[in-house]
Amino acid sequence: MNDRSPSPPILLTPGPLTTDPAVRQAMQRDWGSRDTAFIALTTELRRRLLDVANGRASHAAVPLQGSGTFIVEATIGTLIGPDDRLLVLINGAYGERMLSIAGRLGKSATALRWPENQAVVPAEVEARLRADPAITHVAIVHCETTTGLLNPMEEVATVAARHGKAFLVDAMSSFGSLPIDVAATPITAVMASSNKCLEGVPGLGFSLIEKRALEAAAGNNPSLAFDLCAQNKGFETNGQWRFTPPVQVVAALVEALRLLEAEGGTAARLARYRANCKVLCDGMAALGFSLYLPPSLQAPIIATFHQPAAPWFAFKAFYDRLAERGFLIYPGKLSKADTFRIGCIGALVPADFDRLLVAIRAIRDELSAPVREVADAS
Amino acid sequence: MNDRSPSPPILLTPGPLTTDPAVRQAMQRDWGSRDTAFIALTTELRRRLLDVANGRASHAAVPLQGSGTFIVEATIGTLIGPDDRLLVLINGAYGERMLSIAGRLGKSATALRWPENQAVVPAEVEARLRADPAITHVAIVHCETTTGLLNPMEEVATVAARHGKAFLVDAMSSFGSLPIDVAATPITAVMASSNKCLEGVPGLGFSLIEKRALEAAAGNNPSLAFDLCAQNKGFETNGQWRFTPPVQVVAALVEALRLLEAEGGTAARLARYRANCKVLCDGMAALGFSLYLPPSLQAPIIATFHQPAAPWFAFKAFYDRLAERGFLIYPGKLSKADTFRIGCIGALVPADFDRLLVAIRAIRDELSAPVREVADAS
Repeated sequence: MNDRSPSPPILLTPGPLTTDPAVRQAMQRDWGSRDTAFIALTTELRRRLLDVANGRASHAAVPLQGSGTFIVEATIGTLIGPDDRLLVLINGAYGERMLSIAGRLGKSATALRWPENQAVVPAEVEARLRADPAITHVAIVHCETTTGLLNPMEEVATVAARHGKAFLVDAMSSFGSLPIDVAATPITAVMASSNKCLEGVPGLGFSLIEKRALEAAAGNNPSLAFDLCAQNKGFETNGQWRFTPPVQVVAALVEALRLLEAEGGTAARLARYRANCKVLCDGMAALGFSLYLPPSLQAPIIATFHQPAAPWFAFKAFYDRLAERGFLIYPGKLSKADTFRIGCIGALVPADFDRLLVAIRAIRDELSAPVREVADAS
Repeated sequence: MNDRSPSPPILLTPGPLTTDPAVRQAMQRDWGSRDTAFIALTTELRRRLLDVANGRASHAAVPLQGSGTFIVEATIGTLIGPDDRLLVLINGAYGERMLSIAGRLGKSATALRWPENQAVVPAEVEARLRADPAITHVAIVHCETTTGLLNPMEEVATVAARHGKAFLVDAMSSFGSLPIDVAATPITAVMASSNKCLEGVPGLGFSLIEKRALEAAAGNNPSLAFDLCAQNKGFETNGQWRFTPPVQVVAALVEALRLLEAEGGTAARLARYRANCKVLCDGMAALGFSLYLPPSLQAPIIATFHQPAAPWFAFKAFYDRLAERGFLIYPGKLSKADTFRIGCIGALVPADFDRLLVAIRAIRDELSAPVREVADAS
């Protein structure tokens, strides 16, 4: 059976991704969720999450059960009050998702859009803030997983702060590698999840929220499960989760955060991802694949490639043959271009990408020469 | 460090609980969440969940990321429409929680209450349904984890069906052991989670919902994350989760469901829990502890004991000394009585409870005779 396979694949995806054996090993224990040992683990989790973004003085770390979308919905539902208005900056599917969440929840929300291969333009944000003074909150996706595009988060934070607006960052694909410093950059809330650059397993999101903003938001969220004020109050009251936490996922994330520190922090992790991404992009270029984004916008997180027009290429066959060789890549998510994606994150090093490139070259050769192959085999 | 302890404690709690090593072993792999192998695992999960309640013909299994409270909120938010009215039957904290969720979401909801040591009375439910014909849905907690009380779920289902009402069952603490047969009992939705009688790890809830009711509920839920119609549509469309699933938690639950089948299904599991509970309750009675509930209302899931009035007993010391010996018990959750709880569920057998009783006797003797102990040590 697939799930008993002796050598499972490595994941070249935006997450869940390849984890370190020590992270998986941390899930080999049962924890009493209200016991002192687990309370200590939760305290360590929240402290380490704040330390990643230098937020211990100003922010509260509010972990939440579920996927990244859950923490985004919880943050918007908690922070955007009845008299507020949210501006979402959109150049990909995850920006669209924030707008959709706000709209469904009945929040006042508007959007500013750019094409999926262009970054958010701070001057245009500023113009919109001048034109629509009812806006109280601005939301951006730091690294758009749709394409791998890096948005100018700090510059937009400065614009928002200049106009006195709260600033929300979906840092799902960036937190733990790309620099985020809430002591240096005015950010009201940073949202991310356990299973991307932190290299934990999926099942947990978290929001680092300015304490003042969180206190002011009490009573906003009609959802019991997604009320981050109540969630934070639970932690502050007795160190416990209000509702059953995914104890093994928490233990895995704490172990992953210890490994992040041991690696040398976010700068060292970013350097490793950059090295992975360079091997990948240089090698793919040599094999004739072209990047969807201009290099200046490409974050070293996930790379989007055009599907080659060559007759040998069909995505399903390409995917399946890579999977047979132990590499899982990711489909594209663009409406206007046929693409696929390869992640650079996870417990992977440049040598893993060298092996990937060898496999891709072999598959290209196999698929390019089916007639000769048959002849050789006869 | 606590979390590296060579022999972690066994959990005598309502969950997370003690799991089988094979369940934890199933978490030792990374899964691509959109890969065919994980799609097959998700399909197996949904099929096995339906089989536990005999629901394959009539119901859809909709798993959801997060804790049990998340799936309760999602089910209420999805199924109770703007013209509906919910009657919640309450004799404990989890009934109160359903009412609170419905109220916060702005649903029309009312309650019928009994004391925490009395079961729901079907005739009183019937009288309320006659008196308030606007009620469209009735919700009950099958086994109230607050006390361990078993409610007459089938009888109330019959009453609800006779009046044409939809019937929602919070089966969090019962699903996988106490009989639930949706082909024989008219139940619109059964809600439960991965980490109780199914003996998986926490991080996942699910609702088994009548297909007709689920189809009719499209558009009800403003929450994107908790929209179970959309969640189900995702599974039906391509076998995938809409949003990143906790892949290791899913793999653990599938392994746990395979173990449930191998054990002989829910009847065999219930028999094991009954045997655990009998050893526990008989032994505690012999040690002078009294059950909070009359035996006729006690489900073999979790037992609530009065805190002894004897001078030797203080809950914290009792808890800590049990923890030192490797047993984690659970605090009480009652407003009107000083109690504690001991769970009978998890990968445990009667011999585990024999060991527990030996430990409790030793702790009682230690704490009863502090002066003699000091004298002995001198």
